[in-house]
Amino acid sequence: MTYAELSSFIKKQQSFLCVGLDTDINKIPNHLKQEENPCLVFNKAIIDATAPYCVAFKPNTAFYEAMGVKGWQNLFDTITYIKTNYPHHLVIADAKRGDIGNTSGMYADAFFNQMNADAVTVAPYMGSDSVKPFLSVKNKWTIVLGLTSNEGAADFQMKGNPELYKQVIKEVSQWGSKENTMFVIGATKADMLKEIRTIIPEHFLLVPGVGAQGGSLQEVAAHGMNEHGGLLVNASRSIIYAGSGSDYALYAASEAMNIQQEMSTLLGLLK
Amino acid sequence: MTYAELSSFIKKQQSFLCVGLDTDINKIPNHLKQEENPCLVFNKAIIDATAPYCVAFKPNTAFYEAMGVKGWQNLFDTITYIKTNYPHHLVIADAKRGDIGNTSGMYADAFFNQMNADAVTVAPYMGSDSVKPFLSVKNKWTIVLGLTSNEGAADFQMKGNPELYKQVIKEVSQWGSKENTMFVIGATKADMLKEIRTIIPEHFLLVPGVGAQGGSLQEVAAHGMNEHGGLLVNASRSIIYAGSGSDYALYAASEAMNIQQEMSTLLGLLK
Repeated sequence: MTYAELSSFIKKQQSFLCVGLDTDINKIPNHLKQEENPCLVFNKAIIDATAPYCVAFKPNTAFYEAMGVKGWQNLFDTITYIKTNYPHHLVIADAKRGDIGNTSGMYADAFFNQMNADAVTVAPYMGSDSVKPFLSVKNKWTIVLGLTSNEGAADFQMKGNPELYKQVIKEVSQWGSKENTMFVIGATKADMLKEIRTIIPEHFLLVPGVGAQGGSLQEVAAHGMNEHGGLLVNASRSIIYAGSGSDYALYAASEAMNIQQEMSTLLGLLK
Repeated sequence: MTYAELSSFIKKQQSFLCVGLDTDINKIPNHLKQEENPCLVFNKAIIDATAPYCVAFKPNTAFYEAMGVKGWQNLFDTITYIKTNYPHHLVIADAKRGDIGNTSGMYADAFFNQMNADAVTVAPYMGSDSVKPFLSVKNKWTIVLGLTSNEGAADFQMKGNPELYKQVIKEVSQWGSKENTMFVIGATKADMLKEIRTIIPEHFLLVPGVGAQGGSLQEVAAHGMNEHGGLLVNASRSIIYAGSGSDYALYAASEAMNIQQEMSTLLGLLK
């Protein structure tokens, strides 16, 4: 998916919502536990329910790895289900990988070729040769951690002069282009988006932290949106666990629709 | 495995070698490709051949993820094989994970509980709440990236005042203790080990970069060893791909033995 395609899909869907598939087998509705594969049944229902209101899905690998080998299969099957049924939606493997060059190449192969994800999140600590193997895969997106939504962002990212996250954004944005690179910027740091936009006015930003983590969608849009949309705002727990009964998918759809409607209003301000 | 147990195992084995199981299905001996599971046959042979000469094994998750779902099973089976047959050897899942608190907790569960690894490598970019869930699992080791062996280490880790890697080592070493925390310090940066030892004199260091990446074992030992050993030096490609014929395991054993003998001499200097 190109930059232009993503931008027009956002305008078509009137949404820049990314649904985080952080499926915790202990948190899904009880009645699903009698299914042969509760995780996959849950994911498919959530995907079907929320696809009309979002432009991207983001399974976080941690939740699948915690299920053992079966979890890795579930991750594959979930991505295959999305790519088969909703080929226009962006699939982000939220993996936060990064290693020395030849090893990062193996990760790029795993997520882009084997698993057919459109995008993968990457940690920048190990520098250029750890990021470039992802960037070198054509028609795929590398989403590099910039300023994350958690408390620990203060420990290293927000220290230095200029702050480490600014160094990372400035440097990494030169390794690729807005056509293959995005940055993770936490919604809980929305006031910093304005300055970030002076460094990278055009890049797409993946913004977690709206919903359960408390970030504000209005603030994120006010400071982070650009004329192409420029944002993918993720919500995970607040959508996928909105309901806990047999009608859980309806609750997820309703929660996603509420966010989409707010996003539609915000996108209207672009015109 | 406690600090004291690891230290005495090093003295017993007269080795601080860690064998990196970076098994690339395209690089293993050709004749194995007719096996039902070439990766596992290869790993078991390498483990049996090198166990007498090392104290730790380190599968890197990237290589297993690149094999798809079967790879994740191979990773499990490899770790199970080591824990069953060589229970005194430390098993390090080289995963370089790190995410917001609750998500890092899922990774800790995946590697420590599901997979039964003794240690996992963790990326520090996301700060304290991304590292502490690993540290909170009893009798396990968290190995945090400090100064890595690759070129890209110069991009962020070696910048700042003090340099980022020193900030990371100083800060992270206070979140846990020498009993549950190690740091990755690349052998290609051996001259910096002296200064690192002034910050963390007692912590174990996991040192990649000897062998194929060109680091010197003597220099690493001269600057990084402490009275408890204090080092785990990893070699991957130079050992596991030492031979390419049917006698590949013999070549791996011989290469591991050469390193062990050098290490024995270096350990002798401690007395």
